Amino acid sequence: MIVGAGFGGLAAAKGLRQSPVDVEIVDANNFHLFQPLLYQVATAGLDADDVAYAVRGVFRRQRNVNVQMAKVTAIDLDRRVVGVVRGTGVSDELSYDSLVLAAGAVSTTYGIAGIDEHAISLKSLDDALDLRLAVLQRFEEAAADPSMIERGELNVVVCGGGPTGVETSGAMMEFFTKVLAKDFPTLDVRSVRVILVEAAPRLLGALSEKSGERAMRTLAKRGVEVRVGVGVDRVVDEGERRVVHLADGTALPAGVVVWAAGVRASPLAESLGVELTKGGRIVVADDLSIPGHPEAFAIGDIAGTEPLLPQVAQPAIQGGRHAARQIARRLEGAATEAFHYRDKGSMATIGRHDAVAEFPSGRRLTGFAGWVAWLGLHLVYLIGFRNRANVLVNWAWNYLTFDRGSRIVAERDLAIDASPRRSLP
Amino acid sequence: MIVGAGFGGLAAAKGLRQSPVDVEIVDANNFHLFQPLLYQVATAGLDADDVAYAVRGVFRRQRNVNVQMAKVTAIDLDRRVVGVVRGTGVSDELSYDSLVLAAGAVSTTYGIAGIDEHAISLKSLDDALDLRLAVLQRFEEAAADPSMIERGELNVVVCGGGPTGVETSGAMMEFFTKVLAKDFPTLDVRSVRVILVEAAPRLLGALSEKSGERAMRTLAKRGVEVRVGVGVDRVVDEGERRVVHLADGTALPAGVVVWAAGVRASPLAESLGVELTKGGRIVVADDLSIPGHPEAFAIGDIAGTEPLLPQVAQPAIQGGRHAARQIARRLEGAATEAFHYRDKGSMATIGRHDAVAEFPSGRRLTGFAGWVAWLGLHLVYLIGFRNRANVLVNWAWNYLTFDRGSRIVAERDLAIDASPRRSLP
Repeated sequence: MIVGAGFGGLAAAKGLRQSPVDVEIVDANNFHLFQPLLYQVATAGLDADDVAYAVRGVFRRQRNVNVQMAKVTAIDLDRRVVGVVRGTGVSDELSYDSLVLAAGAVSTTYGIAGIDEHAISLKSLDDALDLRLAVLQRFEEAAADPSMIERGELNVVVCGGGPTGVETSGAMMEFFTKVLAKDFPTLDVRSVRVILVEAAPRLLGALSEKSGERAMRTLAKRGVEVRVGVGVDRVVDEGERRVVHLADGTALPAGVVVWAAGVRASPLAESLGVELTKGGRIVVADDLSIPGHPEAFAIGDIAGTEPLLPQVAQPAIQGGRHAARQIARRLEGAATEAFHYRDKGSMATIGRHDAVAEFPSGRRLTGFAGWVAWLGLHLVYLIGFRNRANVLVNWAWNYLTFDRGSRIVAERDLAIDASPRRSLP
Repeated sequence: MIVGAGFGGLAAAKGLRQSPVDVEIVDANNFHLFQPLLYQVATAGLDADDVAYAVRGVFRRQRNVNVQMAKVTAIDLDRRVVGVVRGTGVSDELSYDSLVLAAGAVSTTYGIAGIDEHAISLKSLDDALDLRLAVLQRFEEAAADPSMIERGELNVVVCGGGPTGVETSGAMMEFFTKVLAKDFPTLDVRSVRVILVEAAPRLLGALSEKSGERAMRTLAKRGVEVRVGVGVDRVVDEGERRVVHLADGTALPAGVVVWAAGVRASPLAESLGVELTKGGRIVVADDLSIPGHPEAFAIGDIAGTEPLLPQVAQPAIQGGRHAARQIARRLEGAATEAFHYRDKGSMATIGRHDAVAEFPSGRRLTGFAGWVAWLGLHLVYLIGFRNRANVLVNWAWNYLTFDRGSRIVAERDLAIDASPRRSLP
């Protein structure tokens, strides 16, 4: 039983390809989401379908896999059952012999007032589509009322200077200056601000200081206002606009507030009644099993290893493969092995042909070379030829033309049509 | 002032490229929809973004065009003003010197009970996405409860045997047998029925009898149940399924009912207080102007020419170009010319490498040759290189692999998550 169809869950299922087991994958969505490119959907560089791939399609040729679309609501490690709610609203219990818990992480607001209500996070496909739509709505509205720009009602404030915040603010600025400025020639798009706020003294805390400084310089050169060393105090809704109040008293008016400042492990971890880390991750044994439950493994963002690994794709993929191997070993009566993470490096892109990549050897790639490395790696990891080809077409088009395809706003997305979103018959 | 960014509205705006005029395009969506391929979005062959193209992008290089995203609610031909509601919910009035009314057509149910509530039409992008989602939801639900198939809760009943109904039922059957049968190996997908119902004695009434018979034979061979000569009496909701009651007493259980049986002109036509045809189209003079209002032209689906032209792309495109020419002539003080429609033929595809195309010369292309003609024509007319390249990638992939990319169902689409669709901050 694999809970979650993210990078970890898929790696675990693929790792069990040759094993004499029946694999059940349970996820609330019927697709795998390529989260590292979500910010490109939010900034209209990619279509939603470019970063989402039907899980059933991934395992079409792996006969021992069954996919269930259901939300996991609870796990009973002692009874070895997973409680789910299906799409029809019906609750069910699924029992297992071995478990791979790969439920990932969720956005967390650290209790900052107004974030939940007035900011958009970037964890799900819907988040990305919501963000894109909100930005485009503001621009369409401003076409009829350009004074919205002076009042700051088109500004985007991105909270969080990790890779997601850096990538989102960079791509958003590029979207504004290169695309929307042409789409809305009557608007003074250059006066629309993109502001990146980070509480720590520098950007990209997980990378070297040099990379953080480079990201800051590049973003500033491209027009993003970067504010480091100051946290968000609260976000207030003033009707037509939101205002982000910083800890130093600064008030930033915004049309859209993006929350990319924090994740914590899926709340499923709490339901287990086992020891958790400060970030809500499950404290695991050195073979990634949950202490006292040798048949249950936690991997990726939900796993609290020692030392803690970053909540990105690589630890999840390696953890998934490891868990699959341990399940196979247990079936053969062999002892389980300790998990050894192999650091392959980190990277973040800062927009058009600029990225930083750091390798464990200490080697760094920056600028265009970093960007090519980033592009190649993401294409290799994107699941399925079709997605890869489409992504390449979209990227090539964006790169050559500064045009972007995915910027549609439908009638029902606006207040134009007062009727509610059509419920499905 | 051009009302509507469909084929007619875009052609009119492009036709005014060289004229000393300010062109305003008003549409409730900010995108042009390539309606002829909408059924491919509904059957997961194409992504939504492949058939929708931002209008602002289309006219980026045409400096005399301004685009407004607003819903036109009324037109006063005497005062020469167009009443709109903007995205913010604010009403406004826009005055014009010349008008091109290209508001298109809407689906009509002919008052048949239950269609509005329990069927999905195929006019808007949202319709297509709703249809795709409804079908996928049924399959995901059936994965947990296969008896849904026996009760007919996965069947699709398509009402209307014109090109849309023929194309949708053919593509839906292909989607079931070639794609979903592999995605859901535990389900008896072959027992899921696709039923096409047409009140007239044959399919494709606008084409020759031979083409209608060919479509019927091909659909039947591919597993679609075709019922001609019997109308729909009513659609009843039985909770888990809908039942389509035909005029001959037959009751067809269905998970999803598609309504492709009728269109009528946009209700805007009624608001004008001018003479209308039976289908609600505006009776126009031979130069396409609205009688008594030489500065106002109606084109495409909303125009009632003599003889009436089919409500497809070609008459709208030619009408748009004609209206643009007449506006230019009037500016120069010249008399307007009569509109002469040049019939370029009709076509309908019936699924994988089979289509019928008929030309005014009497020449017909069928089977693979017809399909290639259909494919080429649609690629040529799809606006923008990017869309074309993506569509080609998607089609090539579908053709070679029988895989389809766009079959994602997100958590918030199902009852899994009881919380309402997140409202945008």
